[in-house]
Amino acid sequence: MDKYEAVIQLLMEAVKTDSTKDDSKIPVGVSNRHIHLSQEDLDALFGKGYELTNMKELSQPGQYACKETVTICGPKGAIEKVRILGPVRKQTQVEILAADIFKLGKKAQPKMSGDLAGTPGITLVGPKGSIETKEGLIIAQRHIHLNPSDALKFGVHDGQEVSIKTEGIRGGIFDHVAIRVTDTSSLEIHLDTEEANAMGLGGSSTVTIVK
Amino acid sequence: MDKYEAVIQLLMEAVKTDSTKDDSKIPVGVSNRHIHLSQEDLDALFGKGYELTNMKELSQPGQYACKETVTICGPKGAIEKVRILGPVRKQTQVEILAADIFKLGKKAQPKMSGDLAGTPGITLVGPKGSIETKEGLIIAQRHIHLNPSDALKFGVHDGQEVSIKTEGIRGGIFDHVAIRVTDTSSLEIHLDTEEANAMGLGGSSTVTIVK
Repeated sequence: MDKYEAVIQLLMEAVKTDSTKDDSKIPVGVSNRHIHLSQEDLDALFGKGYELTNMKELSQPGQYACKETVTICGPKGAIEKVRILGPVRKQTQVEILAADIFKLGKKAQPKMSGDLAGTPGITLVGPKGSIETKEGLIIAQRHIHLNPSDALKFGVHDGQEVSIKTEGIRGGIFDHVAIRVTDTSSLEIHLDTEEANAMGLGGSSTVTIVK
Repeated sequence: MDKYEAVIQLLMEAVKTDSTKDDSKIPVGVSNRHIHLSQEDLDALFGKGYELTNMKELSQPGQYACKETVTICGPKGAIEKVRILGPVRKQTQVEILAADIFKLGKKAQPKMSGDLAGTPGITLVGPKGSIETKEGLIIAQRHIHLNPSDALKFGVHDGQEVSIKTEGIRGGIFDHVAIRVTDTSSLEIHLDTEEANAMGLGGSSTVTIVK
């Protein structure tokens, strides 16, 4: 076969792949409660100049689950072994489940990551010290990570909200799913464990945008 | 005021109440994991002839939360202080959260109460003994309790499935909500804590049927 035939065959295979792949599906990522720390707070909890240990890469490029955990404490109770996600951030952010509100005795509202003004603080305990944050306790608002190419394909833009649909015996629709577009995002909807369980979704599930 | 005026006033108040009350709202009841026991299993766990202690009436007439709790054990872990709901039933039924599947290391599927054929068994531990049930471990399928008058008003019938809608930042739609009609039911949608939290609902929330 000559070089033109080879190119044509490659093109045909590319077309075939495209037509069998369902491009409308968005993979699900399920988050349990977790925490992002500033270097200052990491120092206070683990010792001056401490560096986080990358235990497992996460689907969003550059993000990883750390070996290290902390205890979070409210007036009513504590939750141990809350996973730290790396790398360190500008501001400490504690993302809990709605169920944890009752365990901790601390109220928290669904908020987008980074939208921390006016949110409650919480006590954090590490092996070398404890701190009380001034703010940063949130329930993560459900959101979809996309890069600009994905955003174009789905016809959505950064800051928008969409609804997503799921199938099965626990199927339904989640409204107010925030759209987050960055150059380095990997296509994924982030739900917490309660949201995923309520809809019968797991780490290998997919959802579709309905509006 | 004569007796006719009194009747007219009563009628006018009734009309006023009707027009201010939103009849399309269904109150939410949130269930944590819990267990219904047969007398035979209650005997095995708490001692021969044991009688459950009514601690708190539930919204469904005749149903109550008991003082007594049991431990449920799977191959991977145990969950202590699981509340027993009374009165005793014909067959033991253990209703867990989807999150408990991982804690216990036991799979369970969403099923309607009483639809236990083919469901997994589980080990139960009480103060006087332990048993391994042959079946009865389920995740409760979301459902609405109605009496025949409510069913007529909402245009639904026993055994049907509907979808319900909720508002707010965590709002959305739950499909496959089973309709259960009995003469003694009190109007209420039963969701487990994960379902309620995922939709931002609590014990004073309401939902509406959308189809």
